[in-house]
Amino acid sequence: MKFSELVQQLDPTATTSLAIGTGHDPDIAGVSAIDDPHPHTLSYIESSKFASHIATTPVSALILPVDAELQNKASDRGLAWIASPLPRKLFAQAIAVFYQPFRLEAELHSTAVIHPSVRLGEGVAVGANVVIQANVTIGNGVCLHPNVVIYPEAQIGDRTILHANCTIHERTQIGADCMIHSGAVIGAEGFGFVPTPEGWFKMQQSGYVVLEDGVEVGCNSTIDRPALGKTLIRRNTKIDNLVHVAHGCQVGENCIMAGQVGIAGASKIGNRVILAGQVGIVDHIEIGDGAIASAKAGIHHNVKAGEIVTGIPAIPHKAFIKATAVFSRLPEMYQTLRRLQKQLDKGES
Amino acid sequence: MKFSELVQQLDPTATTSLAIGTGHDPDIAGVSAIDDPHPHTLSYIESSKFASHIATTPVSALILPVDAELQNKASDRGLAWIASPLPRKLFAQAIAVFYQPFRLEAELHSTAVIHPSVRLGEGVAVGANVVIQANVTIGNGVCLHPNVVIYPEAQIGDRTILHANCTIHERTQIGADCMIHSGAVIGAEGFGFVPTPEGWFKMQQSGYVVLEDGVEVGCNSTIDRPALGKTLIRRNTKIDNLVHVAHGCQVGENCIMAGQVGIAGASKIGNRVILAGQVGIVDHIEIGDGAIASAKAGIHHNVKAGEIVTGIPAIPHKAFIKATAVFSRLPEMYQTLRRLQKQLDKGES
Amino acid sequence: MKFSELVQQLDPTATTSLAIGTGHDPDIAGVSAIDDPHPHTLSYIESSKFASHIATTPVSALILPVDAELQNKASDRGLAWIASPLPRKLFAQAIAVFYQPFRLEAELHSTAVIHPSVRLGEGVAVGANVVIQANVTIGNGVCLHPNVVIYPEAQIGDRTILHANCTIHERTQIGADCMIHSGAVIGAEGFGFVPTPEGWFKMQQSGYVVLEDGVEVGCNSTIDRPALGKTLIRRNTKIDNLVHVAHGCQVGENCIMAGQVGIAGASKIGNRVILAGQVGIVDHIEIGDGAIASAKAGIHHNVKAGEIVTGIPAIPHKAFIKATAVFSRLPEMYQTLRRLQKQLDKGES
Repeated sequence: MKFSELVQQLDPTATTSLAIGTGHDPDIAGVSAIDDPHPHTLSYIESSKFASHIATTPVSALILPVDAELQNKASDRGLAWIASPLPRKLFAQAIAVFYQPFRLEAELHSTAVIHPSVRLGEGVAVGANVVIQANVTIGNGVCLHPNVVIYPEAQIGDRTILHANCTIHERTQIGADCMIHSGAVIGAEGFGFVPTPEGWFKMQQSGYVVLEDGVEVGCNSTIDRPALGKTLIRRNTKIDNLVHVAHGCQVGENCIMAGQVGIAGASKIGNRVILAGQVGIVDHIEIGDGAIASAKAGIHHNVKAGEIVTGIPAIPHKAFIKATAVFSRLPEMYQTLRRLQKQLDKGES
Repeated sequence: MKFSELVQQLDPTATTSLAIGTGHDPDIAGVSAIDDPHPHTLSYIESSKFASHIATTPVSALILPVDAELQNKASDRGLAWIASPLPRKLFAQAIAVFYQPFRLEAELHSTAVIHPSVRLGEGVAVGANVVIQANVTIGNGVCLHPNVVIYPEAQIGDRTILHANCTIHERTQIGADCMIHSGAVIGAEGFGFVPTPEGWFKMQQSGYVVLEDGVEVGCNSTIDRPALGKTLIRRNTKIDNLVHVAHGCQVGENCIMAGQVGIAGASKIGNRVILAGQVGIVDHIEIGDGAIASAKAGIHHNVKAGEIVTGIPAIPHKAFIKATAVFSRLPEMYQTLRRLQKQLDKGES
Repeated sequence: MKFSELVQQLDPTATTSLAIGTGHDPDIAGVSAIDDPHPHTLSYIESSKFASHIATTPVSALILPVDAELQNKASDRGLAWIASPLPRKLFAQAIAVFYQPFRLEAELHSTAVIHPSVRLGEGVAVGANVVIQANVTIGNGVCLHPNVVIYPEAQIGDRTILHANCTIHERTQIGADCMIHSGAVIGAEGFGFVPTPEGWFKMQQSGYVVLEDGVEVGCNSTIDRPALGKTLIRRNTKIDNLVHVAHGCQVGENCIMAGQVGIAGASKIGNRVILAGQVGIVDHIEIGDGAIASAKAGIHHNVKAGEIVTGIPAIPHKAFIKATAVFSRLPEMYQTLRRLQKQLDKGES
């Protein structure tokens, strides 16, 4: 398509937020990354840090930040361009113009096993070997990929997508526009055992899991239900692969949890919290809004809103960085200390 | 039901271990948590730490510890109560009075694929799309949820429950009263490769996995079989989600492994060992009975019975706590040390 | 079989690299580990460290290293033996003589759902309830275990084995002689979200995953596809259970990743790199050929070829070991430092 048509699709209404270069109007066949660029494509530059690419890139058009210098450089090379205060978001929109992920047809596969009590919305796609048990409610436009299993009394909201081989346990409530990736398990029994002199005594997990609208759960991640009440993930929170959220946790809106994060029982995470890869949080912790935990942080104490923490146990990020810089000098410090001690002891004697 | 009936169900025989309050006999409609209490329910208080709830809770009855002061407070408010040396266990029993998890009907679903050589016990439930391969033995009262796959020659003991989408590999022996949660994989090939000048050479894993009676394995956890002999999890050990137990490990009775624990090949874990979340244990380690590893501990050396270890590498917990308290002062210590050194060098010159 | 026949099978051509003991020719019924030895079996000894076993082992034959002393000891006891510069590799070959893992018959199970556009090679085994979607290509001798799901346009190379309940997403290219273990998910959407004032905006993941020949991926591991281009695992790299490789990573040949390793987006790993259990690597990192990361290392900076790194953040292994040895003395150092400071301040005043 012509660059001008693409621009029209990317931002048909809010044109005021965009500046569009006055160059020619090339054909755009797709998108490519600025460090792996292809001719006849659109690419993007996040900031002036990547300005050097403009002089040599073989692409035909660029998404630029709002930066007159970069825009002039692009125009000088005869590249078509569009500028935005959020160039990466615009590039994501451009990818979606050229690519949409695979979806099943809106039909019920003949091998699916659907209990007669299931309430199915309109335009639902149910793949091969899907199993939907009693009293489940499936919203409009839901897509269940092959081999998904849904236990009784679960609810799946409109347009939500469940990928292959994932399992939704009894009473789970999944909102609209969610995506559950392959192999994820939502709503299984929390890990609840009471220590007794005879060993571990099982506490039944009578609660359920709630995922609000727009939540994503990554491949093979697990979110458990509690003994009583609910485990809650609020709207638009995004969870990566192999993450474990234990029974009774409450996670706020618009959080990000990277791969292999683990949160123990009954912890409360605020809104817009970012947990980097392999972070661990012990039980009954509270994390304030907008807090950030660095990769591998081990959180044993509450974290205030906006705080950035690092390390095991996690401490304020800046303190960790400073202490870590000295860590490898510990042996040298130890030797110096012993030498000083001897000097001083000798001096005193 | 009446409180008195509930008490009867909770402890029909061993009444001597219980004290029952002399208040009225309210109707109990269910259970609720003390920090999320509901009228007409039974709740519980673990210890005097939570005593303040008694004055205000809207519940109708309480499980209390053996503590006359708490009991008097409850009686004074007209609350029915029952006291036990293990109040949390009694509360778990109360939950089970009002709630039992979903179970399949004891029938073979028409879509299940069961090899003719399979020996099925009585009262077995086999869900939709379950696949059971040659020479598998299934005990009485076993429940196989949808899409479970069992490889040849596995044995599943009486009353054991396998949740959806889990996979049991060849020759695995699972005892009675076990629970394998959704997506878990038991008995797959251990990660065995021999380094050679031409690259990694595969060592076939001819062994098998044994889970004794009462073992639980969490969602998406994996327990591998070894090249020779067996990987063994002894009775009543409970394993949480996303845990990895490598080939040839031996784990004792009544252990607890929290989420995302990893144990490398051929390590030996004693009885009643507790491994908190994200603990890692390298290969060929021995952990003594009753040892505890704190969250995220990295165990590179044997741990004695009863020891509590923390940190990476793991050291005795108290030493870790003390050292950690100083850690963030390292930069200050470094500066002080340099200053002292200068002072002393100047003094000596 | 006779020991001589076994030797013939183990190394029919390259006999020059082997020395064979001149003892008698016992019947060998199987293999056993040297620390769990059985009569009438072949076992192996890695090095002189295990020499003491020779005097007492009940096995009938041994694989030995090239070490005249060990060989003489074995001969003296009347044990048959064979010596090799790679005794462990030879033992792996011996296991494979007596044991081959379960394989499905080369037939298409009647319950498999195979799209008419799928191209199937010769001698393919497709298990029960397998789902293969449009335009997938399956090579010769491929084995798909029950409940595997393959999304459209994936390619599976000759002789590759996919175990039960694993999921291969759209456009994934898997080479020849690969093994994907149960529950693994290959080619799912990378975790790509753009921060905007309104929250996280999804970036579609239009790329794909490539596994070259001889790659293994462990149970419940996940390898994601990127927004653009590909995630690449080069030939003969072996990945253990519960590992996460994020979108856009490139991993070299003959690498080893132990259980629960996590690699964030767009990192580049060289050839023959070893990542021990629970290692984490942040995004956009480069790891040189032959580097080694110790268990639980957290890699925040590039690692040079051949370097061994340990700790969080990872530093050279030797420096980490030295610093760690002092770590538990930190409280004592702190006290000493304060005392010296007081002494010195007093001396100066």
